[in-house]
Amino acid sequence: MANKETILLLYQRPLEPSFVPRGDKKAAFDVPENYLADRYKPIGVQLFNRFNADADEKIPVKKITLPELGEILELGRHDNFSLFIPKHRRLAGRLINIFMGMRNVDELQSMAIYARDRVNPYMFNYCLSVALLHRKDTQDIDVPSFIESFPDKYVDSKVFTRAREEATVVPDGSRMPIEIPIDFTASNLEDEHRLAYFREDLGINLHHWHWHLVYPFDADIRIVQKDRRGELFYYMHQQIIARYNAERLCNQLARVKRFIDWRKPIQEAYFPKLDSLVASRAYPSRVSNQKLQDLRREQDQIRADVDQLERWRDRIFEAIHSGQIQTENGEIKTLGEFDGIDTLGNMIESSIISPNRTFYGDLHNMGHVFLSYIHDPDHRHLESFGVIGDSTTAMRDPIFYRWHAYIDDMCQEFKATIPRYSVNDLNYDGVTVQSIQCQSKDGKANELNTFWQQSDVDLSRGMDFQPRGSVFVRFTHLQHQSFSYSINVNNSGGQRQGTCRIFIAPAQDERGNPWSFRDQRGMFIELDKFVVNLRPGQNTITRRSTESSVTIPFGRTFRNLDLNRPTGGEALEQFNFCGCGWPQHMLIPKGTAEGFKCHLFVMISDYANDRVNQDNSGLCNDSSSYCGIKDKLYPDRRSMGYPFDRLPRDGVQVLEHFLTPNMRVQTVSIRFTNRTILRKGQN
Amino acid sequence: MANKETILLLYQRPLEPSFVPRGDKKAAFDVPENYLADRYKPIGVQLFNRFNADADEKIPVKKITLPELGEILELGRHDNFSLFIPKHRRLAGRLINIFMGMRNVDELQSMAIYARDRVNPYMFNYCLSVALLHRKDTQDIDVPSFIESFPDKYVDSKVFTRAREEATVVPDGSRMPIEIPIDFTASNLEDEHRLAYFREDLGINLHHWHWHLVYPFDADIRIVQKDRRGELFYYMHQQIIARYNAERLCNQLARVKRFIDWRKPIQEAYFPKLDSLVASRAYPSRVSNQKLQDLRREQDQIRADVDQLERWRDRIFEAIHSGQIQTENGEIKTLGEFDGIDTLGNMIESSIISPNRTFYGDLHNMGHVFLSYIHDPDHRHLESFGVIGDSTTAMRDPIFYRWHAYIDDMCQEFKATIPRYSVNDLNYDGVTVQSIQCQSKDGKANELNTFWQQSDVDLSRGMDFQPRGSVFVRFTHLQHQSFSYSINVNNSGGQRQGTCRIFIAPAQDERGNPWSFRDQRGMFIELDKFVVNLRPGQNTITRRSTESSVTIPFGRTFRNLDLNRPTGGEALEQFNFCGCGWPQHMLIPKGTAEGFKCHLFVMISDYANDRVNQDNSGLCNDSSSYCGIKDKLYPDRRSMGYPFDRLPRDGVQVLEHFLTPNMRVQTVSIRFTNRTILRKGQN
Repeated sequence: MANKETILLLYQRPLEPSFVPRGDKKAAFDVPENYLADRYKPIGVQLFNRFNADADEKIPVKKITLPELGEILELGRHDNFSLFIPKHRRLAGRLINIFMGMRNVDELQSMAIYARDRVNPYMFNYCLSVALLHRKDTQDIDVPSFIESFPDKYVDSKVFTRAREEATVVPDGSRMPIEIPIDFTASNLEDEHRLAYFREDLGINLHHWHWHLVYPFDADIRIVQKDRRGELFYYMHQQIIARYNAERLCNQLARVKRFIDWRKPIQEAYFPKLDSLVASRAYPSRVSNQKLQDLRREQDQIRADVDQLERWRDRIFEAIHSGQIQTENGEIKTLGEFDGIDTLGNMIESSIISPNRTFYGDLHNMGHVFLSYIHDPDHRHLESFGVIGDSTTAMRDPIFYRWHAYIDDMCQEFKATIPRYSVNDLNYDGVTVQSIQCQSKDGKANELNTFWQQSDVDLSRGMDFQPRGSVFVRFTHLQHQSFSYSINVNNSGGQRQGTCRIFIAPAQDERGNPWSFRDQRGMFIELDKFVVNLRPGQNTITRRSTESSVTIPFGRTFRNLDLNRPTGGEALEQFNFCGCGWPQHMLIPKGTAEGFKCHLFVMISDYANDRVNQDNSGLCNDSSSYCGIKDKLYPDRRSMGYPFDRLPRDGVQVLEHFLTPNMRVQTVSIRFTNRTILRKGQN
Repeated sequence: MANKETILLLYQRPLEPSFVPRGDKKAAFDVPENYLADRYKPIGVQLFNRFNADADEKIPVKKITLPELGEILELGRHDNFSLFIPKHRRLAGRLINIFMGMRNVDELQSMAIYARDRVNPYMFNYCLSVALLHRKDTQDIDVPSFIESFPDKYVDSKVFTRAREEATVVPDGSRMPIEIPIDFTASNLEDEHRLAYFREDLGINLHHWHWHLVYPFDADIRIVQKDRRGELFYYMHQQIIARYNAERLCNQLARVKRFIDWRKPIQEAYFPKLDSLVASRAYPSRVSNQKLQDLRREQDQIRADVDQLERWRDRIFEAIHSGQIQTENGEIKTLGEFDGIDTLGNMIESSIISPNRTFYGDLHNMGHVFLSYIHDPDHRHLESFGVIGDSTTAMRDPIFYRWHAYIDDMCQEFKATIPRYSVNDLNYDGVTVQSIQCQSKDGKANELNTFWQQSDVDLSRGMDFQPRGSVFVRFTHLQHQSFSYSINVNNSGGQRQGTCRIFIAPAQDERGNPWSFRDQRGMFIELDKFVVNLRPGQNTITRRSTESSVTIPFGRTFRNLDLNRPTGGEALEQFNFCGCGWPQHMLIPKGTAEGFKCHLFVMISDYANDRVNQDNSGLCNDSSSYCGIKDKLYPDRRSMGYPFDRLPRDGVQVLEHFLTPNMRVQTVSIRFTNRTILRKGQN
């Protein structure tokens, strides 16, 4: 019978039919003949004879009554797939529901095999992954990292020819990793290229893909309607912009300019140099000085005008400034101090739980779509979307940040309308943060250290139709020396609990001037958030950077799909990850050679006001800040981004004015050393 | 020892190292260890053990003293290669000279093996092909069609993923051809797409590539300095424009607009959808409304301003209108009535025999280069050139025709300055063409019939790193029913010879009006040219369309590299082709469903004035009109394009006025039927 491991074999070599043996054990699914795709039906016997001989193990497949796939097949097998395109979302929603409806894992596996060799491989991967993440009986299955199935969405297309050469010519033991130059998409003539290490980081892009797996736009409402989904949409993207802006300052670039004038040419170009192995087409480039144009893409069922985007924008601003929205059935609903941002996030994003899609439209998604079709708005050239049109690749393009800076600005416009935090809302009576220090191994106090690291990823499970055996790609990414915080807190009250909130922001603006609080508040990057027990009197809190509530460990971003991994008990649990979470190696900004001055901010808030009544233990609870906790409420009752999510109280001009005794700021320095270190365990 | 067949194995699977067995006989070169590329030296023994076991036959390789490849290696193995880029031309020239300098075929083969696994594969193919075409001892070697080594330059990139699936999954006998949709690059929303069948025709693009093989820009002067090279550059391209314009009229489009204002945005976009398997990058697209920009491409050693193009243009026009040029050493040389166009063609093209490159520059080539870098003029985005920058792909892009219409216009400007043909220059006293008829099998008299045909090409020799065995791609191209001419000529003189010149041109302009002669003269397409013996009295000349002096047979365009082909004698001779020549299937324009009216023009000129004193028999003499004859003088002493190459004598307003008794015009109709026929011998 199907076990929960064999279903993961379907993630390997997405274009190779299911009857082809796969995995180290050369296991082949015993595919019923009526499951074969049309191309293979006439030669079924021939194929079975051929591939059965090659298989060391047969995996039984339960015969089930097969449903009609219907319109799901309208997206071609060799097309590209995008969650931003309403039609693709709808088709994916249908397939997710089919997978969710299977009565047990045996039937799910059987259905998946049938679907796999027919539907679009990207859509298949997405739908099966959403199902595995959300079905009760597959909670102990670890969905493989997307890069293992589709490395072509993450690495320089040049790699694949060389990888084929390695795999074909060089025997397994003698293969060498293929190095991707860090500067493969552009040169330093292009100012924006200074941020390529961030935009093109594998971990960041995997995080973004995984976030959208956890928060799909379209599926059964029980999957879509997650706690504070809209607010998390706002906050996670706000934090991306804050992080991007900090990186920009480290690279002598001003904060990103919002993409506000949708009629003007866009100066920044982007040439992704990615080649879809499935769609068998390169991702289109976005050249300089193109303008949004009205879309007429009949194949995607998209007819949309820039006018329409503008109407949606105007209505959303009307909602923000009037403090109320129109619902689908004509009622008026107030945007509340705490839940208003959630409603607004859902409205802007949007998804099937958007409050009134007919009226407020689909602004954020369609912005991506307009930008992604800028080169071929009426499909006359039969071009697919650019990277900005695909959540797996969108963060590579500089325009992603300009668009999301605009989206964030809308949200901030709302935040400006709600009550400001009083001292009382911020303070924790009797709790004083007295000092903060951060320290990395062998480093100076309050100095963080960054450098380049090289890590290897195995491409071979994602490369169809080539000899077996690993072929590694070596990429270069930012890394930092891990460090720990040491925080001294005086508690003049009794034994109690607090939430320790750690943020960091650049100490100066792009001019080299001190920040006004209004500006700096948007720059604060959340580094960690955790509950602390406070004894009466002196407390020293120590915390390691690797424990961050924002990140997932390096090994989770780049884990290999290991079919020989441990099963059961604790050993299994350590493999049970969601994959959503900021990559640990990108926790702190790059800094500069001379040391980039930052404000490290620590606040201890009253846990009694923060606490959510639930058991926070369980799966995927270690990167809750940007991802929430799987199947649970968001584990912090405060508005996301607290205490920086609102305009400050009167009289607060600079950060210093903002501080209450339970907060403290320490100036730290991030020093970048231009050296490259190979990750341990690689040769 | 190397035989002349084994050297052709080097054309197969260009990225697979030479020690990998190839060909149906699984023959492997016995590569000396010191020939191995650096990557393979450390594992040489392992590799030899592995691949020797797989080889059925070993081909000995003579050890020679290896020359330094030096700067030839500056073009990377995974880069793209262009004859238009001066640096690439120079590197190619050096490699050609190395190949030409080898003392015998054994040494050539040895040198080629050494170079093959080191230098850029496109450059290798080009240089070896030029050498094989020009070496005395390799005249009986048939250079394989470029598409067999590099199918990626000719077919939709989508094909390759599917081809890998066919080759890997389906056993050899059961494989099915992969069909390329005729509309893969654009839809009919784009007016220019109506011409895609012409621009993207495999045969036309192969002809263009082969023409540049025969007429390289840079190599030993004895190779470059061919008889009337500059004039042929002018004439071959003039004919391409005439043919393109006829196709445009058939498709309700006006004649192509010259690209004359180099500062204005170019409206027509082109998205080639080709993916270089070697460079492992897609060919960049050219989106709408981009403008030429000054180039700063240090890697290619190109610094060029649009200003500079304009200066070259102005100086060339100055030469044309003053009738004289400045040579490199300061002398003044007159542009003569007959040789002026040759000088001018060399000047505009240009090549190492250009009369004064410092002064007149490199207009035509650099126009290609400017257009090909329009998306990334300063290389900030590390992009390679677009299709227009590569002679193998340039004819796919609509801008090719706008650029060459401009180049042609310059040449016509010169032609307007030279003496017009008098009646005496045109007439052949006593020879009267009395009637013309053309007839296709089962067709109406004077009606030509066109339709779609599907033909298959084997990709497998050009796809590296996949299982052996043929994988066919099926493409759809224009075809016509073959036909024959029947021409009645009265000769009132004695036994003598004439040159029969057959042209065709649309009967009406794009408005549906009759042509003025000045306009129609540029529309005449050469269909054939041959020597006829005229008896006294009545003569009936019959000639088959397949005998055309313009074309090469269908099978030569699409021949397979067959290593089991006949050797020696006549059987060999029929395989000894050059490959240069217009493809037979594109001999006549597409026509229209209702029948496209054309003027079929026949002229018998006096052979005594046409004749060149040489034996015209030999290799490649059947497509001399656009290609010349290999190693011989151009076989017609008249100005190329005669009698339409000059402005008409006074009083000639329309074609009818132009005719002397030895000329005649017959109205014919080209009827297109929208049906698709599979080529015989395919299933």
